[in-house]
Amino acid sequence: MRLSRLFVPTLREDPAEAEIASHRLLLRAAFVRKVTAGVYTTLPMGARTMRKIEAIVREEMDATGSQPIRMPIVLPVEPWKRTGRWEVYGDEAFKLADRHGREMILGPTEEEVVAPLVAAENPSYRDLPMNLYQVEWKYRDERRPRFGLLRAREFLMKDAYSFDRDEEGLRESYRVMYEAYVRVFDRCGLEVVIVEADPGSIGGDVNHEFLAVAEVGEDLFVRCRNGDYLADIEAATPAPPPASDEAAEPLVEVDTPGAATIEIVSEQLGVAPERTLKSIMFDVDGRVVAVLVPGDREVSEKKLARLHFPAVVRRFEDEDFATRGYAKGYVGPQAFAEDVVVFADPSVRAGANWVTGANRFDTHVTGATLDRDFRVDRWDDLVEIRTGDRCPLDGGELEVGRGIVAGHIYQLGTKYSGPLDATFQDEDGTLKPLIMGSYGIGISRIMAAVVEQSHDEGGIVWPKALAPFEVVVVLANADDEAIRAEAERIYSALGGCGTEAVLDDRPERAGVKFADADLIGYPIQVVVGKRGFERGEAEFKVRATGERSVAPLGDAVDAAVALLATAP
Amino acid sequence: MRLSRLFVPTLREDPAEAEIASHRLLLRAAFVRKVTAGVYTTLPMGARTMRKIEAIVREEMDATGSQPIRMPIVLPVEPWKRTGRWEVYGDEAFKLADRHGREMILGPTEEEVVAPLVAAENPSYRDLPMNLYQVEWKYRDERRPRFGLLRAREFLMKDAYSFDRDEEGLRESYRVMYEAYVRVFDRCGLEVVIVEADPGSIGGDVNHEFLAVAEVGEDLFVRCRNGDYLADIEAATPAPPPASDEAAEPLVEVDTPGAATIEIVSEQLGVAPERTLKSIMFDVDGRVVAVLVPGDREVSEKKLARLHFPAVVRRFEDEDFATRGYAKGYVGPQAFAEDVVVFADPSVRAGANWVTGANRFDTHVTGATLDRDFRVDRWDDLVEIRTGDRCPLDGGELEVGRGIVAGHIYQLGTKYSGPLDATFQDEDGTLKPLIMGSYGIGISRIMAAVVEQSHDEGGIVWPKALAPFEVVVVLANADDEAIRAEAERIYSALGGCGTEAVLDDRPERAGVKFADADLIGYPIQVVVGKRGFERGEAEFKVRATGERSVAPLGDAVDAAVALLATAP
Repeated sequence: MRLSRLFVPTLREDPAEAEIASHRLLLRAAFVRKVTAGVYTTLPMGARTMRKIEAIVREEMDATGSQPIRMPIVLPVEPWKRTGRWEVYGDEAFKLADRHGREMILGPTEEEVVAPLVAAENPSYRDLPMNLYQVEWKYRDERRPRFGLLRAREFLMKDAYSFDRDEEGLRESYRVMYEAYVRVFDRCGLEVVIVEADPGSIGGDVNHEFLAVAEVGEDLFVRCRNGDYLADIEAATPAPPPASDEAAEPLVEVDTPGAATIEIVSEQLGVAPERTLKSIMFDVDGRVVAVLVPGDREVSEKKLARLHFPAVVRRFEDEDFATRGYAKGYVGPQAFAEDVVVFADPSVRAGANWVTGANRFDTHVTGATLDRDFRVDRWDDLVEIRTGDRCPLDGGELEVGRGIVAGHIYQLGTKYSGPLDATFQDEDGTLKPLIMGSYGIGISRIMAAVVEQSHDEGGIVWPKALAPFEVVVVLANADDEAIRAEAERIYSALGGCGTEAVLDDRPERAGVKFADADLIGYPIQVVVGKRGFERGEAEFKVRATGERSVAPLGDAVDAAVALLATAP
Repeated sequence: MRLSRLFVPTLREDPAEAEIASHRLLLRAAFVRKVTAGVYTTLPMGARTMRKIEAIVREEMDATGSQPIRMPIVLPVEPWKRTGRWEVYGDEAFKLADRHGREMILGPTEEEVVAPLVAAENPSYRDLPMNLYQVEWKYRDERRPRFGLLRAREFLMKDAYSFDRDEEGLRESYRVMYEAYVRVFDRCGLEVVIVEADPGSIGGDVNHEFLAVAEVGEDLFVRCRNGDYLADIEAATPAPPPASDEAAEPLVEVDTPGAATIEIVSEQLGVAPERTLKSIMFDVDGRVVAVLVPGDREVSEKKLARLHFPAVVRRFEDEDFATRGYAKGYVGPQAFAEDVVVFADPSVRAGANWVTGANRFDTHVTGATLDRDFRVDRWDDLVEIRTGDRCPLDGGELEVGRGIVAGHIYQLGTKYSGPLDATFQDEDGTLKPLIMGSYGIGISRIMAAVVEQSHDEGGIVWPKALAPFEVVVVLANADDEAIRAEAERIYSALGGCGTEAVLDDRPERAGVKFADADLIGYPIQVVVGKRGFERGEAEFKVRATGERSVAPLGDAVDAAVALLATAP
């Protein structure tokens, strides 16, 4: 291809609307253009990269035996009402009525289509397991679309659905897909972490998120810097710090006027926040629950709620303190009545001689000591994890990371097949609900996530598997016929040996072409310009490393191919 | 692939909803399933054939230099209001509002997206010509979806858009696309006729329809059986029959009580309808126009309207006959006043001694003779053409055919770039509207059209370029291990030599497998069954011809490949 004949309107300036790198660079490098909020056109460069991602996904799906189909986008709503998702999605789904006033929905995911599709053919156990997939645009009417392709209202997904006889079959189908997902992200050059996660609006029992590690990600995860531990932020449990061997001091009351927060009391008494003890008060279905954590830690309400599920966990409000007689800001565990359930995080064992509330306004105590001055009814991991916590496996340092959900897989069981009456005939002749799994990969999202992980000040740095072209031949002096002929020759020869090359033959200054080559992010740049030409040389740049080299013009094709072979 | 692992739920019975062959067979052969009116899921077999059609279309587009992009489906409405198509489409477009109440439209075609896309980059004349295409699902909320994929509400289209400096450039872009379309349909094995046609809701000056010849088509065309003439039904002009040399007889009045129609007067007087002369009366902007045609012909009101455009042509109603003093059913041209404009079709010259109305109720005349008894002010082609008319080029027999619109291309000029202010900077620095063309191919529609052209009582007969698999290996006796091993061997070897083979290894009776092989329509069937196996032979059937043959098992792969090579 020749850039002079391609629609690649790169931008010199950063678009004002773009807050993050992938959004900014995919606009600047002319991969996409915005049509309206959260809705983008894919330009020729973007279309090439998207098709490469799609091809990788399809190959890996085909290799699992999953079968490509294609389901509609405009859907009747009845199945969505039966599964309850018409309500669950609410305004997040695009809803419309056809000319006859029949309600329809633009598919945000397609369990409600695929389960009736399979069930309508009266499958037998002999037809299972079965796995169907499609690559199709999906729709979510995000309240606030932003971050370009990362939170778009129209996005390209691969969605697959497995159908099994039983849970054991589901687990096997799930395992096969899990491994295919690992291969997909590996081939796309995307660094992902895999965590068990919140099932969200899809539901089911077991599910895993494939998070592309990126600062701009909306999902948090925790991992050990030694690489042996990884979890969703809500599921992560740090190793408890070693227990304190400090000798107990006496319990002494001190005046702390107006010190209703950890910050103020620390400052007034000149102690570090981690030497103070917080008692965070909750109402759990009417019962009072106190959670003790060091003053520098936060209680994870999600962990507490999970512990008490299905009871409703509610943090004390001002009124609760008042009516139940607790001195808000000065609560200490020393005076808890018998019917208060006292939880503590294991980190409380690591401290001693705590500064804590005296259960009177403007007063704290020092020297509060476990078992002597206060009791704990139950020890449980209840802190929000943070970078610097210790790994439960090897004691290494944990770090909290952020990731972009690039894939999400679910063991659904009968969550959809139940309400949709999607059954199969088992060997004994009875009808049983199909046991389903659901497996999504965001294809347009992968394109953005790769850019988040792989860019620099100059622009995008594509892994070669996803680059729109593998090599750009930059014709630096377009008005010199001999140089042009040489660039054309190298460009043609690269194509002839199966390399995806593009020739930058535009009537632009060399500087513009170099900047665009960096911006668009072709893995290898071959420069044919006046200076090198006079020496009989072509110049090369490996985009990922910035490494430059030269080779005789006659060897330029071999040199480019060799550089490409070792490029990431 | 193995049919035992593919989701191919063929149907034994004809689905009640299917009125036409493609609808019936694509359901029965498990290429598609209906989700709701006019909305279909594509099953694995259908997905394979659709992807082959898409691949052919993409290859031919790429070969023209057209660039693949991808535009959104959910679109903002402002550009549609500017071009007036928000009104033109009316209820035929799917319209919706997002969560913020902003109106949106599901793209029925995308001139309103692509013109602003290109114009936003401030193109210069040096960037032109440019041609962008996409393959994407389109939406039309048909009042009465029917005929399966032929009149669906969601359908897959390739749409391309050309941008030129001037009309000459447009004509060249159009020519290139026209030729690419010819190649696409040829490769798809689809017999098409190409006619100039009504521009419909897309508009523009010049346009051509590519009609797939089929009885169920909704568009009429006319062609000479000798192959030298082809036209849209409204544009076709038959050769006038030779002028009559019959001697004129006297004009005689005859009683024809109650004979206000050609049928009755023909019967009463014992003359053929083509010996009678009809005077069909119109009001054209207040002026009386009479059109004379032989009694067995119909006046083409569209041709008459085109002649008088922009005047409004209205056929006489009962009231017009009464107030203007014409004896309805008994009008003859003998007494027309000076201010009546008398048109006649050239076929009137071919008759003589006409039976026509006497301008009194219950009375006709015989022997009415041109120039002696009545005048003609203007001769023009004004009859509805019919099979049996003569070709204007060679006098051969014309036939009226029906076709399915499989492609439609348009020279749009500034029809969209004008209202959308989509301009480019010309060499002289001025901004000028982009000169556009628009080019559509119905990909899902091609799948149905091919089935309409290529099926028999047993099912579909796919041309090999579109068949979901080229060869089926039918394992007729699945419980015999030796036979199974031989079928597996042949199946694997076919794959090994690059043939797309599928193995029917389902635990079904041989009869079911034969019926399914015919129904699905693989070009070549290889049967490995007990009888042949004992003789050391495989059996072959060419689906298109029904031709059967045998070959030694050892030669089965070569035999199948050879049969495939010569199959259509």
